[in-house]
Amino acid sequence: MATTDKASPRDRLLEAAADLFYREGVSVGVEALCRSAGVSKRSMYQLFDSKEEMLAASLERRRAWYETQLTHAEDASATPRERIRYVFERLEKSSGNPEYRGCPYLAVLVELKDPGHPASVVARDAKDRMESYFREQAGQGGAADPAGLARQLMLVFDGASARAGAHIEHLDDGLATGTATALMDAGGMA
Amino acid sequence: MATTDKASPRDRLLEAAADLFYREGVSVGVEALCRSAGVSKRSMYQLFDSKEEMLAASLERRRAWYETQLTHAEDASATPRERIRYVFERLEKSSGNPEYRGCPYLAVLVELKDPGHPASVVARDAKDRMESYFREQAGQGGAADPAGLARQLMLVFDGASARAGAHIEHLDDGLATGTATALMDAGGMA
Repeated sequence: MATTDKASPRDRLLEAAADLFYREGVSVGVEALCRSAGVSKRSMYQLFDSKEEMLAASLERRRAWYETQLTHAEDASATPRERIRYVFERLEKSSGNPEYRGCPYLAVLVELKDPGHPASVVARDAKDRMESYFREQAGQGGAADPAGLARQLMLVFDGASARAGAHIEHLDDGLATGTATALMDAGGMA
Repeated sequence: MATTDKASPRDRLLEAAADLFYREGVSVGVEALCRSAGVSKRSMYQLFDSKEEMLAASLERRRAWYETQLTHAEDASATPRERIRYVFERLEKSSGNPEYRGCPYLAVLVELKDPGHPASVVARDAKDRMESYFREQAGQGGAADPAGLARQLMLVFDGASARAGAHIEHLDDGLATGTATALMDAGGMA
């Protein structure tokens, strides 16, 4: 996700927005965003109608990258259980980074407290896609109730990411993967 | 937690702070807080050194009430499993309120992104106390690893409260209690 001098003002703004909102929260001001991106406020408002729209676009832009990070590399040969475990293993690995602040989509939802905000809509969609992935894998793995198991796994993922992001929990001993595994066992997954 | 006209400026400020920070987030300004409390900014700064200190004090003040809400009423006769289930049942009940915005302590930690902030310290302490309660109950209930089970239950509690607070999950079908119960079973609790 490195930016270069050749990146367009739009790209530079979206990168700066993604970084700053993640590190400091959605209350970061337009001035700080423009300064970080090296773009004038006037140019910013030519590209985006509002800060809200820029926040939503920055979340949308990173989604493909985020999902790639969480998807098992050997997807063809991996079992459903391995694919689900992989998501939690990646979470555990990411959370060891001192810069980790939790799942960016959940954080935005918690901070905005407004399901109708354009950025909340993008964030919710990202979370729904993860839940769908869990449901699909749970179904392929023979879970008795794939939808219910997927919802349980989302509680664990979001609880683990929020607690690790807030630095009140460490996942480096496999806590999240272990919890997910206990629930897959209880849910009858192969 | 109703305030009356006889409440002191300090009490009115702490109530307003708890309400507004919960509903709108930690970026609520001092002016809005003072207006809501009916207290001048000058008076506020005579009572609190900073907005940060006021936020921390408002969280601290509600903690006893919050913990009472989550503690089983028939504590003497309840089994450890019933006491843990009760915490999740209360969460599920609270989350049905349209005003529900998740656990106030987790939300503050996610929003501040600063473990050293005075309000983060209070919030972390509240979360640690809940984890201790789970650990104690898990131990009394014969769990193989009470500390590990308590950490798992915290993932579920915080994931459920964050997702319900963000209105991307409904807990009214017993999702949180069911997940906690599956983990208590897996953890060997009576």
